[in-house]
Amino acid sequence: MNISHRAETIQASPIRKLMPYADEAKKRGIKIYHLNIGQPDIETPKQILNAYHNFTDKVVAYGPSQGLLTYRESLQKYYKKNKIDLSLSDIIVTTAGSEAIIFAMLVTCNVGDEIIVPEPFYTNYNGFATIAGVNLIPLTTYAETGFALPEDEKITALISAKTKAIMMCNPGNPTGTVYPRKDIQRITEIAKKNNLYVISDEVYREFVYDGVTHTSIMHIEGMEDHAIMVDSISKRYSACGSRIGAIVCKNKKLMSAVLKFAQARLCPPTIDQIAATASLEVPQSYFEETISEYKKRRDIVFDELAKIDDVVCIKPEGAFYIIAKLPITDAEKFAVWMLEEFQVNNETVMFAPAEGFYATPGLGKNEIRLAYILNENDLRKAMLIFREGLKKYKSLKQ
Amino acid sequence: MNISHRAETIQASPIRKLMPYADEAKKRGIKIYHLNIGQPDIETPKQILNAYHNFTDKVVAYGPSQGLLTYRESLQKYYKKNKIDLSLSDIIVTTAGSEAIIFAMLVTCNVGDEIIVPEPFYTNYNGFATIAGVNLIPLTTYAETGFALPEDEKITALISAKTKAIMMCNPGNPTGTVYPRKDIQRITEIAKKNNLYVISDEVYREFVYDGVTHTSIMHIEGMEDHAIMVDSISKRYSACGSRIGAIVCKNKKLMSAVLKFAQARLCPPTIDQIAATASLEVPQSYFEETISEYKKRRDIVFDELAKIDDVVCIKPEGAFYIIAKLPITDAEKFAVWMLEEFQVNNETVMFAPAEGFYATPGLGKNEIRLAYILNENDLRKAMLIFREGLKKYKSLKQ
Repeated sequence: MNISHRAETIQASPIRKLMPYADEAKKRGIKIYHLNIGQPDIETPKQILNAYHNFTDKVVAYGPSQGLLTYRESLQKYYKKNKIDLSLSDIIVTTAGSEAIIFAMLVTCNVGDEIIVPEPFYTNYNGFATIAGVNLIPLTTYAETGFALPEDEKITALISAKTKAIMMCNPGNPTGTVYPRKDIQRITEIAKKNNLYVISDEVYREFVYDGVTHTSIMHIEGMEDHAIMVDSISKRYSACGSRIGAIVCKNKKLMSAVLKFAQARLCPPTIDQIAATASLEVPQSYFEETISEYKKRRDIVFDELAKIDDVVCIKPEGAFYIIAKLPITDAEKFAVWMLEEFQVNNETVMFAPAEGFYATPGLGKNEIRLAYILNENDLRKAMLIFREGLKKYKSLKQ
Repeated sequence: MNISHRAETIQASPIRKLMPYADEAKKRGIKIYHLNIGQPDIETPKQILNAYHNFTDKVVAYGPSQGLLTYRESLQKYYKKNKIDLSLSDIIVTTAGSEAIIFAMLVTCNVGDEIIVPEPFYTNYNGFATIAGVNLIPLTTYAETGFALPEDEKITALISAKTKAIMMCNPGNPTGTVYPRKDIQRITEIAKKNNLYVISDEVYREFVYDGVTHTSIMHIEGMEDHAIMVDSISKRYSACGSRIGAIVCKNKKLMSAVLKFAQARLCPPTIDQIAATASLEVPQSYFEETISEYKKRRDIVFDELAKIDDVVCIKPEGAFYIIAKLPITDAEKFAVWMLEEFQVNNETVMFAPAEGFYATPGLGKNEIRLAYILNENDLRKAMLIFREGLKKYKSLKQ
C-alpha cells in the first residue's frame, strides 16, 4: 500500500528525531542533559495546577469552539496589560500555538500559496506547511548579525503572485532574536503595500532581557486587517502539556473563517482551558523571577560558548534558545556522537542540530540550537560536558 | 484583504450554526432541551475525574508525540478485552478523534484525492476533508432501509483513480446504524481488491443495543496493511472535553508517517492523557449502566417519533443518535422556528437539521438528527414539546 506524497516527504522533527539515540544511551545507564527541546524545568504556577485539582464538574464536557468565554475574557485582560486592546471576538482559543499556526495558514493560503519566513525558523513550521499545503519561502538571516532582518529589498525580492503572508517568530525560536520596533514597522509597511498578512508567533513575549522591549504585531497601527498573532501558554507559564494557545486577529472576515475550522474540531481541551484561566491570578513576581532565572541561564550558556575558539554566536535578547555556529562540518553527526560515544562520568548532553531550522539546503549544517531550560547547576555541568565533547570531537578525524 | 478559497467555502457546522438562535432564545428566558449535540449528560467516571484532582507533578510538561507510554499500554489492554491484539507501535494518541481523522486523511491522500463515505455522515468529516484537501465521495444510504450499506456494485461504481480510502462510522453518527459483520467483510474485500484503505471511526463501539455485536475493522483478518481505526474517549467515558483520541493501524510505514505529522504538533494534552489512563480502572458495570440508560432513552425517542404520522425512522441499534425524516419540506427552517417562535411553558427543543450530514445536494432537507443524551425526564418533556411543535408547524403555511 502506498502512502501519500506528503506523508513520504514531511520532515521528521530535527528536535525529536535523535530521540532513539538518547533512548539507547539511557539504556546504557548514561544521564542526558536535554538542551534539545524547549521543555522548561520552571514549575508551572500553583494557581494553574490548583485549577486541575479543583475541577468540580461531574462531566468533562465540550466547550465552545472559540474557547471558554471565561478564558477568552482572562486573555483579553492579559493582553490589555500588554497594551493590546481586543474585543472578545478577536480571540479564538486553539489547541496550543501549533493549531493557531495551522489555522492561520489555512485561512490565508490556498494549496500551493507561499509564506515568507525568516530562516532559521521554528522547525515545526515545516510540518504545519505540509499539512496546509503551503510553501515556505526562506528569508535567510545570519548568526554573524544576530539574525537581524535584512533590508527591505531582500524581503520584497521574495514576493510573488502566490505570496499571501510574512510569518515571523518574535522573540525568535531558535534564534533568541527580538526584533526592534523599526523592523516590525518595516515588515508591516511591506505587508500593507503588497496586500499580505503578517503572522506573528509571539509565544515567548514575556521572555526578553537586558531592558529590551517587545513589540507585538498588535501594537502597530493600521494593521487591523493584516495582523494575525499566534500565542500559547506553553512557555509563558511552563505549561507545555496543557496545549492551550490562541489565534488573535481584528479582521472579522478572517476570524469568522477561523471559527469554521475551529468548529470542525469541536473545541480545545476543557479543563486545560479552566487551568489557563487561572493564570490571571499568577502574580507579576512569577514573571520577574522567571525572567531573571532565564537571563542567568542565558549568560551561563553564552559565556561558556564564548570561551570556545571559533564558535560564532551573538548574545540573544529573548526566548530561551541560542544558536551557535561550531568549528565542525556536520552538527548532526556531532550530536549523534555525543549520545553514542561521549560521556563524562556517565553523563552527556543532547542538543538540536540546526540544519532542520533552515529551508535553504546546506545552511545550518554546522550550527546547533541550545535550549537553556535547565537549572543553573545542571546547565553548568552540561556546558562543561559540551565543551569537553566538542574539544574531543574536533581532535578526531571527522 | 482576501481570505483563502478553502476558508470561504468550508462548511459551517450544521450542529453549531443554529447556536445564535439558541442564545437569543435563552436571553428571552426560554429553556432549551439540547438534542442537537452529542454531549452526553452521563457523568464522567470518578476514576477519570480523580486523576485530574490527583495530578502531583510540578510541571505540566510535553509528553511524547505518540502519546504517553502508560496511556498507550492501557489502550492496548482495553483493545485486547475487545478482541483486538495490538503492539504499542500500532497506537498513536491524538487530540481527540478529530485529529485522528485528519491524520488518516493526510497520510492516505494527496490534495485532490478521494475518499468514499456512506452518507449521511458525521458532518465534521467535511471540515477535516477541507483541511486535508480531500474530496469526499458520498455513497448514499436511506432512512427507509435503516441506512444499510448498498450492494457492492453501488460502491465499486464510485471508485476512481483518485480513490484512496473508504471511510465509515460504525456504530454510525448520525444514523445509529451498526454494520453487520458481513457488510464490513464486503467493504474490506472491495478495499483489498482495489488497493484502498478502510478508515473506520469506531468511537461509539461500546454503545450497541438489543444484543447486537459490534464488528471492528481490526477484527477482520488480512487487513493489516489496509485498516485504520479511529477512536476516542469522548463518548465512551462521557469525556468529550478531554480531547483524547487515537489512531490505530498495523501498517508500519503508514504509522511512521503519522508519527511525523504528530511530531509537528508536539503532543496531545498531558494531564488529559493521564486521566484517560485511569479509564482502565472504570468497572464493567459503568458500561452496563450506561448502555442500559442509552437504550432506555433510545426507546423513548423512537416510541415518541413512531406516534407521529408520516415520520420515517428505523430503530437504530447503536450510538446515541436517531435520524428522522419529517413530513415537512425544510428541517432547518423548522429548527429555527422552534427556537424563535415556539415554546411550551417557556421551554423548547433544539435539534440538528440533517442536510449538513449529506454531501449530495438536496438530500436530507426534510430530515433531522436527534441525540438522545438527556436524562429520561428531560427527554420525555423534550419529545412532547417536539411533537407539539411539529404539529403546530405543519398546521402553519410553510
